[in-house]
Amino acid sequence: MIKVGVIGCGTIANAAHIPSYMKNADVEIKYFCDIIPERAQAAVEKYGCGVAVTNYHDVINDPEIDAISVCTPNRMHPVITIDALRAGKNVLCEKPAARTYAEVEQMVQAQRETGKILVIGVVNRFNDSVRKIKQYIDEGRLGTVHHVYVSFRQHRSIPGLGGAFTTKEIAGGGVLIDWGVHYLDIVMYCCGDPKAVTVSGETFSKLGRDIKGYTYRKMWAGPPKLDGVFDVEESVTGLVRTEGPVITLNGAWAQNIDEKECYIDFMGDKAGIRLQYGGKFTLYTAEYGALVNYTPDFEMTDMFANEINAFVDYVQHGTPMPSKVETVAVTAQLMQALYDSAAAHREVVL
Amino acid sequence: MIKVGVIGCGTIANAAHIPSYMKNADVEIKYFCDIIPERAQAAVEKYGCGVAVTNYHDVINDPEIDAISVCTPNRMHPVITIDALRAGKNVLCEKPAARTYAEVEQMVQAQRETGKILVIGVVNRFNDSVRKIKQYIDEGRLGTVHHVYVSFRQHRSIPGLGGAFTTKEIAGGGVLIDWGVHYLDIVMYCCGDPKAVTVSGETFSKLGRDIKGYTYRKMWAGPPKLDGVFDVEESVTGLVRTEGPVITLNGAWAQNIDEKECYIDFMGDKAGIRLQYGGKFTLYTAEYGALVNYTPDFEMTDMFANEINAFVDYVQHGTPMPSKVETVAVTAQLMQALYDSAAAHREVVL
Amino acid sequence: MIKVGVIGCGTIANAAHIPSYMKNADVEIKYFCDIIPERAQAAVEKYGCGVAVTNYHDVINDPEIDAISVCTPNRMHPVITIDALRAGKNVLCEKPAARTYAEVEQMVQAQRETGKILVIGVVNRFNDSVRKIKQYIDEGRLGTVHHVYVSFRQHRSIPGLGGAFTTKEIAGGGVLIDWGVHYLDIVMYCCGDPKAVTVSGETFSKLGRDIKGYTYRKMWAGPPKLDGVFDVEESVTGLVRTEGPVITLNGAWAQNIDEKECYIDFMGDKAGIRLQYGGKFTLYTAEYGALVNYTPDFEMTDMFANEINAFVDYVQHGTPMPSKVETVAVTAQLMQALYDSAAAHREVVL
Amino acid sequence: MIKVGVIGCGTIANAAHIPSYMKNADVEIKYFCDIIPERAQAAVEKYGCGVAVTNYHDVINDPEIDAISVCTPNRMHPVITIDALRAGKNVLCEKPAARTYAEVEQMVQAQRETGKILVIGVVNRFNDSVRKIKQYIDEGRLGTVHHVYVSFRQHRSIPGLGGAFTTKEIAGGGVLIDWGVHYLDIVMYCCGDPKAVTVSGETFSKLGRDIKGYTYRKMWAGPPKLDGVFDVEESVTGLVRTEGPVITLNGAWAQNIDEKECYIDFMGDKAGIRLQYGGKFTLYTAEYGALVNYTPDFEMTDMFANEINAFVDYVQHGTPMPSKVETVAVTAQLMQALYDSAAAHREVVL
Repeated sequence: MIKVGVIGCGTIANAAHIPSYMKNADVEIKYFCDIIPERAQAAVEKYGCGVAVTNYHDVINDPEIDAISVCTPNRMHPVITIDALRAGKNVLCEKPAARTYAEVEQMVQAQRETGKILVIGVVNRFNDSVRKIKQYIDEGRLGTVHHVYVSFRQHRSIPGLGGAFTTKEIAGGGVLIDWGVHYLDIVMYCCGDPKAVTVSGETFSKLGRDIKGYTYRKMWAGPPKLDGVFDVEESVTGLVRTEGPVITLNGAWAQNIDEKECYIDFMGDKAGIRLQYGGKFTLYTAEYGALVNYTPDFEMTDMFANEINAFVDYVQHGTPMPSKVETVAVTAQLMQALYDSAAAHREVVL
Repeated sequence: MIKVGVIGCGTIANAAHIPSYMKNADVEIKYFCDIIPERAQAAVEKYGCGVAVTNYHDVINDPEIDAISVCTPNRMHPVITIDALRAGKNVLCEKPAARTYAEVEQMVQAQRETGKILVIGVVNRFNDSVRKIKQYIDEGRLGTVHHVYVSFRQHRSIPGLGGAFTTKEIAGGGVLIDWGVHYLDIVMYCCGDPKAVTVSGETFSKLGRDIKGYTYRKMWAGPPKLDGVFDVEESVTGLVRTEGPVITLNGAWAQNIDEKECYIDFMGDKAGIRLQYGGKFTLYTAEYGALVNYTPDFEMTDMFANEINAFVDYVQHGTPMPSKVETVAVTAQLMQALYDSAAAHREVVL
Repeated sequence: MIKVGVIGCGTIANAAHIPSYMKNADVEIKYFCDIIPERAQAAVEKYGCGVAVTNYHDVINDPEIDAISVCTPNRMHPVITIDALRAGKNVLCEKPAARTYAEVEQMVQAQRETGKILVIGVVNRFNDSVRKIKQYIDEGRLGTVHHVYVSFRQHRSIPGLGGAFTTKEIAGGGVLIDWGVHYLDIVMYCCGDPKAVTVSGETFSKLGRDIKGYTYRKMWAGPPKLDGVFDVEESVTGLVRTEGPVITLNGAWAQNIDEKECYIDFMGDKAGIRLQYGGKFTLYTAEYGALVNYTPDFEMTDMFANEINAFVDYVQHGTPMPSKVETVAVTAQLMQALYDSAAAHREVVL
Repeated sequence: MIKVGVIGCGTIANAAHIPSYMKNADVEIKYFCDIIPERAQAAVEKYGCGVAVTNYHDVINDPEIDAISVCTPNRMHPVITIDALRAGKNVLCEKPAARTYAEVEQMVQAQRETGKILVIGVVNRFNDSVRKIKQYIDEGRLGTVHHVYVSFRQHRSIPGLGGAFTTKEIAGGGVLIDWGVHYLDIVMYCCGDPKAVTVSGETFSKLGRDIKGYTYRKMWAGPPKLDGVFDVEESVTGLVRTEGPVITLNGAWAQNIDEKECYIDFMGDKAGIRLQYGGKFTLYTAEYGALVNYTPDFEMTDMFANEINAFVDYVQHGTPMPSKVETVAVTAQLMQALYDSAAAHREVVL
């Protein structure tokens, strides 16, 4: 039995971390922490356990606490994570690790110094489709994967326009750091975490700028904050050469194309796979002179529960997870290079 | 009435140039020239006019000839074109202009020196959808077009594997120079022929290498030549910064993804357009607080006939065409830079 | 170039053997032989070559003839084949090899004595689906194939009721020897020609007995001969243990179930395949915890042309075929045992 | 009014026996007996009547009890049934009667000695489709039924892999004894309970052996018991000659063919019937020179209620049922012979 504190009681905490902890018989949630007292208190009442606090130091200074989940806006990820590690706690920090690669490096450093567990919530590493694709690639079923195309394009999906998601000071970036991190992490995980060699990117901030005039069907993490800030990218494109495959990417929270194209194409010389993000995948190959396509049929388990259970197991028994901070730092570096390249309008060589 | 010689009597001559000349009342085809005598003779018999010759000098040395169409494999484009210009002939040369940018520069030079007409067969500039899109963009309906995504991806479409199309010495390149030239030319035309600034590309030659083992449904320009050559790219990806929009591109004659995705997305801050290559287009925008999508309904005319008629008009009356060699050279330079970047695995700055 | 005689100019000769010989540049058909003179003459006129004869000895006694096709009713298969072999000719004999296993043994004996080529027209060994299935099984993709279910059931398909097909003296049997021979041969070929160990069968002759009262939609090899003979089985069932898989079979030219179920299920411990007879196949397996089904997409070539071309190649260059008489004799023995078991109403142990 | 004890309070008791008794006004359930006390108690609470006991002797030693239902795993069927008969109780014992024919013979013997009622839960004898088919056959509408094909094949339906269903010591067998018993009993019932003459069968245990690796969509009677036992057949094939029709059968709880084919074909010389197991049936015949197919349209009543009501009526008024143990013993003997034949790999002659 371990005791856990959840820091930040917003959407991701309530939708993923807390329910998964509640279902794990080896966990007791001792603290719900949020700078908004009402949110912490609401969690205590909803889940029927724990204490509501507003200062995260109350959580990390409690000697009974074994581990914490960091579910705050991105800005606070490195601050709380590093404080917690130094206080001797094990940490599961939501993605992205931080706003910048420099911050992620500090987190890696703190983990090394303390020897405590630090994993990042790149939850797709616990998704059944992703895990299967990794197996197909690892076992050579695709041959050499030479090119990956990553598409995370939607028509009108800026989250909470004007709020934390679209404020660079808080979020660190826009669609790349928010959605792209998942897609790039999937590519990295499935392709063996290859290092980036050259990175070229461009980012665009057009549709979100006119906060009042932005037209949309529904807004998640909304509603718009008309006097808020929009200084992050709403769309991005890039070309990355790695030690493994070349990666081409297009992403958009918002674009003037009303199509939803959210998938990853892993293109190998023996076979290819298209993963529909969040769903199943289709494998395309040729064998014995015939073209063959199929979509494996399997049950999808809850990736958040898988992640939390693996974290609890890691804390209790030392079983390593594939989402350790030093692994995730590779993607953080890649995203940083995309932002740097976009600022310079030139390719970055790492 | 002008007199014309058609040099090269293969697929593109018979499918496009000759029938269009035949329909134009101001044209008489005097020569059908092909190094394979039977092909030249077959044209004479099929169209009931002209003389069959095998040496193109017989055509360009005839003082009665006003203009020629160059419809040979790519390797001969600059050779015949330059000879013809120097012989005082006006020239419509099929796309791509040549195998390399250096050759295209020589063609531009020869045109300048001779003052004769030299247009390249970038026939999409005479396509009704493309012409309309150019109007939308020119009139500001899309606002600023900041990003264009170009997709020319098919599953199994290597042409005549092992033959002229897949032999670099003859064709100069693979899917980029064969299909990409059309797509990039459309982008260039619609966006005002912006100069490329940085170019990064990668090319792949995987599926076609095993000529015997390559599996396909049907092969155009086929059948495979089992002892032939495959030394061109079957797929390509790239990121191009121009003085206008950023261009991202993915192209494949062959890939292990069984989807056909052949379109161009023009993404502006006021509206966007998706053009289905060879078909119609849809415009996406927002107005008066509402999201608006529509697909204009119009009759498509024959773009080859439009092109030939414009060429005849140019020769007869001096009416300029948008496909002059110096304009097309911009795309040739861009493609050359993509190949150079792919060879160096680094971005090229122009 | 080889010279060929076709003996028997009925359906199978005109639909398969003759057109395939005509398309093969290494073959000249010298004789069309049929006991009905009009049929032989019609072939000469239709194909514009050869001589019409009615006595097959005229063919096999011509020293110029290299090979013959035997396309007569089953009764004459062994007679003509053995005579031809003894006359020094190579023979492609239509399936089934003969009416009984005893006759097939005589054919095997004659082949051994003469050293000439004798192949049987088990044409499915030249079918693309069948050849692919054999590859899947040979390469272990199905694991061990432990059970095969063979279904060749149709509602109303007795051929030429009352005629040669339904007269035991001529045909040797009914649906088992006519259709079953193909299905069993496919099973044998794909599973490595395993020997039968125990054979139990039952045959039924019910619906065809009342020749006048038999109701049907269309009749192939028809029309019914109202004063003819029906003394063969119209349906059959059986269970066969072999050194490889167990085979269960149900077949019907006619049954009071209006379903067409013509397929073979190869059931292995790693994967299974259902072959739709004459068509494509679907593979069913599980990998990485997911259930996977797919139908390979490939072009079907003409199996009769493949067979004839292989025969010509065998005669010219000695390239062996998988349809040699000693291989086909295994299936003949199995079918004989099914008939014997049906007569005794007891299992036969081989 | 009769008093009843239900012994075994698992799935079949709760889904069928108890609700049917509850709806019958002439019945009072006095005991719910289960070796798991919580299951017995749960029944008492759910149905609001009876006493919970764990020892079945408490039930059969109560002089007030008129009849019992035996709803335990197969192993206990003969034990409890024989004890109950000897204690003077009437018994409805779930199917299969027992694990082996030897045990069934003891049950028959005990019934004879005691004169009490012993019926087996071959509930399809109370199914409306089955009862109608029996009428069609009895009245000669199919002519002579010469062949029956029984297919009970599913893709992935092993119940509770590793548990009671797949442990031979408890269940006696796999898909044949669990599903096959129903199908064979339907055949027997409709065809007048003909004696088997020769029996040949083979059983297969392949897919279930790797309990961890077995892939499935859903598992009934699940979930898998990873450290459990799988020593029964998951698929079976057989050929049975009876005094009436020949029976061919294929059955699979699991197979590498993703088709569900669960039906019985009764093939007569005048007509045939295909019964979709658990559903309706279609009749195929010919009359007045026309082919005729039809699917009778009728309301299906609850076969379990029909069975229980018939049992109560039998106990109260002596009205015989078609499911008396001596009748069911014929099928038990047939299944035993299939298992014996599969073990010997030879036909068994009865």
